[in-house]
Amino acid sequence: MSYPRKVEELIEKLVKFPGIGPKSAERIVSYILGEEEASVRSLAENLLSLKKEVCLCERCFNLSDNPICNICADEKREKILCVVEEVKDLILIEKTGFKGVYHVLGGRISPLEKISPPNLKITQLIERLKKESFTEVILATNPTPEGENTSVYISDILKSMGIKHSRLAYGLPVGAEIEYVGVQTLKKSIEGRKTL
Amino acid sequence: MSYPRKVEELIEKLVKFPGIGPKSAERIVSYILGEEEASVRSLAENLLSLKKEVCLCERCFNLSDNPICNICADEKREKILCVVEEVKDLILIEKTGFKGVYHVLGGRISPLEKISPPNLKITQLIERLKKESFTEVILATNPTPEGENTSVYISDILKSMGIKHSRLAYGLPVGAEIEYVGVQTLKKSIEGRKTL
Repeated sequence: MSYPRKVEELIEKLVKFPGIGPKSAERIVSYILGEEEASVRSLAENLLSLKKEVCLCERCFNLSDNPICNICADEKREKILCVVEEVKDLILIEKTGFKGVYHVLGGRISPLEKISPPNLKITQLIERLKKESFTEVILATNPTPEGENTSVYISDILKSMGIKHSRLAYGLPVGAEIEYVGVQTLKKSIEGRKTL
Repeated sequence: MSYPRKVEELIEKLVKFPGIGPKSAERIVSYILGEEEASVRSLAENLLSLKKEVCLCERCFNLSDNPICNICADEKREKILCVVEEVKDLILIEKTGFKGVYHVLGGRISPLEKISPPNLKITQLIERLKKESFTEVILATNPTPEGENTSVYISDILKSMGIKHSRLAYGLPVGAEIEYVGVQTLKKSIEGRKTL
């Protein structure tokens, strides 16, 4: 005896999701079985319309309802380009009140995961920089070894193109206690100290 | 700027799943957006058919494709009834090679979660015990305070009905080290020690 076929099939699909293991998948299926039919239908329809209605912005590769996303279409935006790994990073940076525009790479260079520059939107970034002019490019990849490598790789290209660019500051996370911050972070925060 | 509407909607639905927070939901939506259209369609269809094709067994409340599940329909099964909280417990007990039948309560008595005996299949269990005869009833609820309470509650009813019943043994988990086992578990394993 195992689960009914449809249940097994759904569990098999759910375990492919990032962060979902067999136990979580079982709990999710059990939750779905307990939901109203209308609610499950709405979830299924949402999945279908997601792929149909949501696309990537042709310019910055942000998720968008239109060929050009709201941010790229907004003419009031400043001519500063922020390069991020993923759309979720863009969403967070938007919350800081940043008023420039973005370029979403769609990941970071990671030999272990077999992600090399051609798998990212780096060629598109270079093409874009040839056509559009920005006062500055901010490299906002993650402060991980992979993010750092990606930033260095792009920085080298930007240098050869003579484009002014910067990297997000390293330092103490706001609200953290120094005791629990890593040595590398502390070292970077000393190097980057600000005169008061 | 936030995510496109369809993305936001799907995230809102996913965070209601057990064990899924906003960050995991974002990662899942991002995964789904990267999937083939056919694969997403298959997922959506699986969700819809799940509710239509999967039901609860009328006798034991196991998940089933038919009104009576395969286990209840199997006449070779022994006349021992194993009472479990959830279908996932039944699936695990099946893997031990248990040859009896089951009764799935659909949860455990938990005042904090506002789950009382009428919310579980306890009335159905009593009715079933009046009609069918078993050589023994095994209470296999979880070894948690709630599972224990549920077991005691059902045990009292079975006593008043004069039905022979037992509880799963407490003791050391196989493969564990005594050093990391809780005091209560160790106490139970000493109480339940076996003469060699």
